[in-house]
Amino acid sequence: MNIVHYLQEKKEIIEKELYQIFAEKKIPQSLQESMLYSLQAGGKRLRPILVLAVLEACGKPLEIGLEAACALEVVHTYSLIHDDLPCMDDDDFRRGKPTNHKVFGEATAVLAGDGLLTVSFELIAASPHYTADQKVALLALLAKAAGAEGMVGGQMADMESEDQQLTLTELQRVHERKTGKLLEAAVSFGAILGGVSNEAFDHLQRYSYHLGIAFQIQDDILDVQGDSQVMGKQVGSDEHNNKSTYPKLLTLQGAKDQLMGHLAQAKTHLTQAGIQTELLASIADYVVQRNH
Amino acid sequence: MNIVHYLQEKKEIIEKELYQIFAEKKIPQSLQESMLYSLQAGGKRLRPILVLAVLEACGKPLEIGLEAACALEVVHTYSLIHDDLPCMDDDDFRRGKPTNHKVFGEATAVLAGDGLLTVSFELIAASPHYTADQKVALLALLAKAAGAEGMVGGQMADMESEDQQLTLTELQRVHERKTGKLLEAAVSFGAILGGVSNEAFDHLQRYSYHLGIAFQIQDDILDVQGDSQVMGKQVGSDEHNNKSTYPKLLTLQGAKDQLMGHLAQAKTHLTQAGIQTELLASIADYVVQRNH
Repeated sequence: MNIVHYLQEKKEIIEKELYQIFAEKKIPQSLQESMLYSLQAGGKRLRPILVLAVLEACGKPLEIGLEAACALEVVHTYSLIHDDLPCMDDDDFRRGKPTNHKVFGEATAVLAGDGLLTVSFELIAASPHYTADQKVALLALLAKAAGAEGMVGGQMADMESEDQQLTLTELQRVHERKTGKLLEAAVSFGAILGGVSNEAFDHLQRYSYHLGIAFQIQDDILDVQGDSQVMGKQVGSDEHNNKSTYPKLLTLQGAKDQLMGHLAQAKTHLTQAGIQTELLASIADYVVQRNH
Repeated sequence: MNIVHYLQEKKEIIEKELYQIFAEKKIPQSLQESMLYSLQAGGKRLRPILVLAVLEACGKPLEIGLEAACALEVVHTYSLIHDDLPCMDDDDFRRGKPTNHKVFGEATAVLAGDGLLTVSFELIAASPHYTADQKVALLALLAKAAGAEGMVGGQMADMESEDQQLTLTELQRVHERKTGKLLEAAVSFGAILGGVSNEAFDHLQRYSYHLGIAFQIQDDILDVQGDSQVMGKQVGSDEHNNKSTYPKLLTLQGAKDQLMGHLAQAKTHLTQAGIQTELLASIADYVVQRNH
């Protein structure tokens, strides 16, 4: 299997679905344009792809995962819009394009984020494809992963840690919430809709936990030695902003060693999950080898 | 029945429940303080009280409505925090206290709003008191009422209409989304949990529709002739900000006539709903007679 081809194919399926979400909604035009601008700004679509890949590993048709997958990408997109705001990370560019508030203004960017977050719950709650029990499981998980105990809390902790020297444990705790929880939710979404056993669910959770940390370590490594052309953003911003990172705490080689350690642990849990794991292992390989 | 006493009693029950929400959550301290600050900043608690009142009118115990009621107040609170931001309405005071961003800074205020919006869905999804079908109905309704087709879209339309002369229909359409949808959701929450017939549901919806418009008209009237001490905020701000209001479009007397017209229509639908309606009629009277 060619993982790059697989990821591209699934990305296109997801994007097609994603752009349909607002087609029939009655939304003020400028707000709709702002929401769509960020949804269409590209990205790896890793979270939704993980939902589909876990379903595929469970031998289930990927169609049943599409709405849940899109809900996660919508939440991810909202978080990027709010994180980029002047009062937060104050970023002018994302993926090589001006950030939402640079194009639409701060007020619209705040509301676009609010609207996206809200619609993510609606997507699942109003889906014709899930049972009420499945919806409740997905919605409870999404709220916990995205909220103040998860992603929002991680962003807060990340901001508070600026100019502070974190320990490795503290750094990991920040990223576990800021990026890890939503990646974990993606794998759990696939597992819930795939109807896996409790034991397989636990192993898949461990897989996603290590995948999430690996993802962040590679992010930090790319900020040190990545190609800004390929990445669509400046490298070296962590150093510039005096942020705690894995390479800074562990040296570049130390960070790479940790990365391979988490990759190995992710794969170990996969083999114990008792489902078709080749695809999910390839995705883990991709996450640690990616150049953007 | 003394409606003022009833409202005070229910307000206390709701606030007790509301302040418990974050008791056991693992949230960065500053974020938690910011969320609690706005939750504890007072207010009429009209949305959650409506949930409990409809349940009571259906002869059901109010306990089953508490989580759903709090979810609505949490969404309302998030919307106030974001609306007050410098990039939005730029308000320094709300209910006589400094607004969230004045105390905690803009970044924390944005995240506190995000966290509150998210937790509102979690409150319902994770409740032990509702069936999966009830949860899905409440969550779908909440997302639609709060999102880009509802409250968020209303705030966007409200901002875009600044310095513009709206027609009465346009003004009503803004408020229908900005404040109406969440008030309607409150009555629908009570009706869903109260298990009313489809016919009663429709009449209660019409009641809440007219109640929502009456609420906004009275808001506009208070901004013209209210007492800023009683209200905890400056009066005359609509005039100052050159906003379209009911008194401006209809004269003060015309606005008062419309107000009484919507009150009458709200009550007409109540009598047709076939449930105990004295309490809900008293709440409508309170909404049009309130001085803050």
